[in-house]
Amino acid sequence: MIGLTAGSTAMYQAMHSLGLAAESNFEGPVKLSAAPHGASVLVLGAGMAGLVAAYELRNAGYRVQVLEYNARAGGRNWTLRGGDRYTELGGQTQECRFDQDLYINPGPWRLPYHHRGMLSYCKRLGVALEPFVQINHNAYLHSRTAFGGKPQRLRAVKADFNGHVAELLAKATQGNALDADVTAEDRAMLLDSLRFWGALDKNYRFVKGPESNDRRGFARDPGGGLSARPAFSEPVALSDLLRSGLWAALPFGEMYDMQTTMFQPVGGMGQVGQAFGRELGSLIRYNAKIIEIHQDEHAVSATFEDLAAGSTRQTVRADWCVCTIPLSILSQIPMNVDGPMAKAIAAVPYCTGLKVGLQFKRRFWEEDEQIYGGITFTDLPIGQISYPSSHFFAAGKGVLLGAYIWDMINSMDFSSMTPAERVAKAVEYGSQIHPQYTQEFDNGIAVAWHRVPSAMGCFGLWSDANRAEHYDNLCGFDGRIVLAGEHASYLPAWQEGAVTSALDAIDRLHRRALAAGAAA
Amino acid sequence: MIGLTAGSTAMYQAMHSLGLAAESNFEGPVKLSAAPHGASVLVLGAGMAGLVAAYELRNAGYRVQVLEYNARAGGRNWTLRGGDRYTELGGQTQECRFDQDLYINPGPWRLPYHHRGMLSYCKRLGVALEPFVQINHNAYLHSRTAFGGKPQRLRAVKADFNGHVAELLAKATQGNALDADVTAEDRAMLLDSLRFWGALDKNYRFVKGPESNDRRGFARDPGGGLSARPAFSEPVALSDLLRSGLWAALPFGEMYDMQTTMFQPVGGMGQVGQAFGRELGSLIRYNAKIIEIHQDEHAVSATFEDLAAGSTRQTVRADWCVCTIPLSILSQIPMNVDGPMAKAIAAVPYCTGLKVGLQFKRRFWEEDEQIYGGITFTDLPIGQISYPSSHFFAAGKGVLLGAYIWDMINSMDFSSMTPAERVAKAVEYGSQIHPQYTQEFDNGIAVAWHRVPSAMGCFGLWSDANRAEHYDNLCGFDGRIVLAGEHASYLPAWQEGAVTSALDAIDRLHRRALAAGAAA
Repeated sequence: MIGLTAGSTAMYQAMHSLGLAAESNFEGPVKLSAAPHGASVLVLGAGMAGLVAAYELRNAGYRVQVLEYNARAGGRNWTLRGGDRYTELGGQTQECRFDQDLYINPGPWRLPYHHRGMLSYCKRLGVALEPFVQINHNAYLHSRTAFGGKPQRLRAVKADFNGHVAELLAKATQGNALDADVTAEDRAMLLDSLRFWGALDKNYRFVKGPESNDRRGFARDPGGGLSARPAFSEPVALSDLLRSGLWAALPFGEMYDMQTTMFQPVGGMGQVGQAFGRELGSLIRYNAKIIEIHQDEHAVSATFEDLAAGSTRQTVRADWCVCTIPLSILSQIPMNVDGPMAKAIAAVPYCTGLKVGLQFKRRFWEEDEQIYGGITFTDLPIGQISYPSSHFFAAGKGVLLGAYIWDMINSMDFSSMTPAERVAKAVEYGSQIHPQYTQEFDNGIAVAWHRVPSAMGCFGLWSDANRAEHYDNLCGFDGRIVLAGEHASYLPAWQEGAVTSALDAIDRLHRRALAAGAAA
Repeated sequence: MIGLTAGSTAMYQAMHSLGLAAESNFEGPVKLSAAPHGASVLVLGAGMAGLVAAYELRNAGYRVQVLEYNARAGGRNWTLRGGDRYTELGGQTQECRFDQDLYINPGPWRLPYHHRGMLSYCKRLGVALEPFVQINHNAYLHSRTAFGGKPQRLRAVKADFNGHVAELLAKATQGNALDADVTAEDRAMLLDSLRFWGALDKNYRFVKGPESNDRRGFARDPGGGLSARPAFSEPVALSDLLRSGLWAALPFGEMYDMQTTMFQPVGGMGQVGQAFGRELGSLIRYNAKIIEIHQDEHAVSATFEDLAAGSTRQTVRADWCVCTIPLSILSQIPMNVDGPMAKAIAAVPYCTGLKVGLQFKRRFWEEDEQIYGGITFTDLPIGQISYPSSHFFAAGKGVLLGAYIWDMINSMDFSSMTPAERVAKAVEYGSQIHPQYTQEFDNGIAVAWHRVPSAMGCFGLWSDANRAEHYDNLCGFDGRIVLAGEHASYLPAWQEGAVTSALDAIDRLHRRALAAGAAA
């Protein structure tokens, strides 16, 4: 494996082995019947799972209390804007110095069209959505070792890969290599489809000419008036294309969780958490660091420290508990659950992800390179550069996602640097793709999820073996406690996993509460 | 050819043979030096070509006068909104009854990222742009004769086509059928790339399972909590897929002029013409029907009737003339140009295109089917259904593009109906794809370009032979007259062709004017 291949394939395989299929079994707004009189629920964590649980349980008539570590609602649903301050584990504090309206989402940043739970809550809470540009044919694919390190336009790599595949398969079909697999009648249709789909010429060849250039782009674009005739560009040879490894980035927009149409909240993903926060108001107690969780046959209690008021400890009690604390944190908190759930909580390691936001003095990617949204993939340690899907064509400064690092080695490497060093490294690497970086860089901010105090990782890394052994034990009730969050779903890393796990958990909680109420 | 194939392939081939390559040779804002003192230009037509010519020539200091047939600026750059009235050839008047903020663009409706001229003028004139969703994996491909007439999701057809192509080519590669074309080392990389790109399993087969379903979608989506495990869907067999003809729609989003990221003006394409209209103010004389164009060695004059004031004829004169009247109209207006240009004007037939806008009582395509923007392609005479790329998730009514017909037979058929019949037919056909049509239809409007008085067709249909014989004669100066418009470009049907042809024309005009001024 060379070029992009190693990293991208590894990521892809990792996503698969994680069960990261990215869809949702959301069936529409939940309709709980009325809560038993006086029934109460303690919700631990005000991330997406906790917020959904609290919102729906309150609507059903439960007395709800939410405890949240941070001073804001949303958890990993979070947007950093100018003026925000953030202190990571180890004590380093960064102040975001972005211009007004500019932001990055350190955590989730996009909503697939089939994440119906998230989309439904956005609609109900009045969070406006706009398209998120995932695939941009004019963004780059880049490898340090291919094409002399020169970034290639995605459209050219895609057209050339499809074209060569079509030409080879047409040749095999015409050469009767597939006679056992494809009937004579189907062969004619297959050839038609390959010519059309692969942009082959009338001889089923992928060559320099109008067909290939209407996909990959021209050497000189056609125009109007005299001297407006186009000049054709030359496709890359198959061997060079294969060896470049750049093809590894082509399927990204085809994956179910990355397909168009995707969305983002106008103003940043954090708008969703904020909207829930406004809705729930004083039901959420912020700055509450959970010290212990204890249940008996009648109730669940949680003891916490108030981080704002100092170390005074307080304890709150309720009939039931929906615990949404990430397993990375929860595994460190004393909680009297039985062996199976305790083992499940301890079994799941957390991904080390990292994002760097970079503000530049102008939107040079649009002005100089006609890149409007989308993602450039690279085999540099920064992994990708993502261009904003809002304020297109705006004058003034702009913010790029200058690094989005998933792989273990590079994310650990970056996490071990100071925030300022991470930003500097992202600028240094990115300037290999966009030389304008050097001149136009303004300021940056870096969030390493391993060092985020409330999460200590960006999502639960399920292996197939772990899931087979522990998943049901993690999700099932233990006494009066049920867990929810992306870690309790088949959609790890996605907010939709948190939402659907919360809906599943409260449905079961409600049925238990009704049964207990009837028995009492 | 069966299913969608005939129509789509014909369209695609037509686009190619028309030279519809859809890019632009725009090189950045034009910089004309100062106009010769007192020099004047008559611009005929206030479509995109005329507006750009008038704007730039005025900025350079020319005395500019624009004559326009319609009562508005923009020409085919046009948006129909509630309250608008439109009378077609034959005298049928329609009043648009769409709700506030809803619209259709009867003419151009999208701006590719590389149409730098159009994008540049939008920016300079303050026309806000938003993404236009061209490709939507959750929209449909539909054929009356395939899959029992049941629409298929684009994602499933795309995944299955790619998967089968990859599996077949992997088989041919492993079977040594391509040993002469691909080296041994490259074969290993080819197999890797096919497995990854085609979503094959570890045995290089495209089968029901996590790989294929992560592209085509699931039978039951995964979710959170207990009972959240996904159920896999079964790919369509290669033969059924080939015979469906649905593959013919797959390359649309890959064509250079249809690739992401595309844009549309917020509020409709007509915003561009309106912005130019405001900018040029009283330089544009509206309701002016040109009767005759005459040049002598000193000047050009145009005689027109004022359609608003009645039939009073008036004549205006200027040193030079940029004539942007569509050839379909211009060929009927007396104008003393020499044989070559006159022959070129007469040589180019015009496309009969047709669009139908349909308002529905609710956005059922979003609410019921999770289709957010993009296009459904069908072999029904309506050709396609396009879903709005704005106001996503909004409550209330919505407007679809319920028909966009290019092919000769269906567009002539629809053009020969009354507007009300066209709307009724679009509803009848569309209900085969969206049964909700019957219940939710509210009102509609239909524009057949053959019957638009100011254009009599939607764009100039260049054949390769015609272009070889006539194009340069059409674009070259004849005395003091130069033509501009999409018809005078290698980008027919696209506004960018009009823009770049106008820039090319005025550049040559300016050089002639300077030379004439220096000689005088």
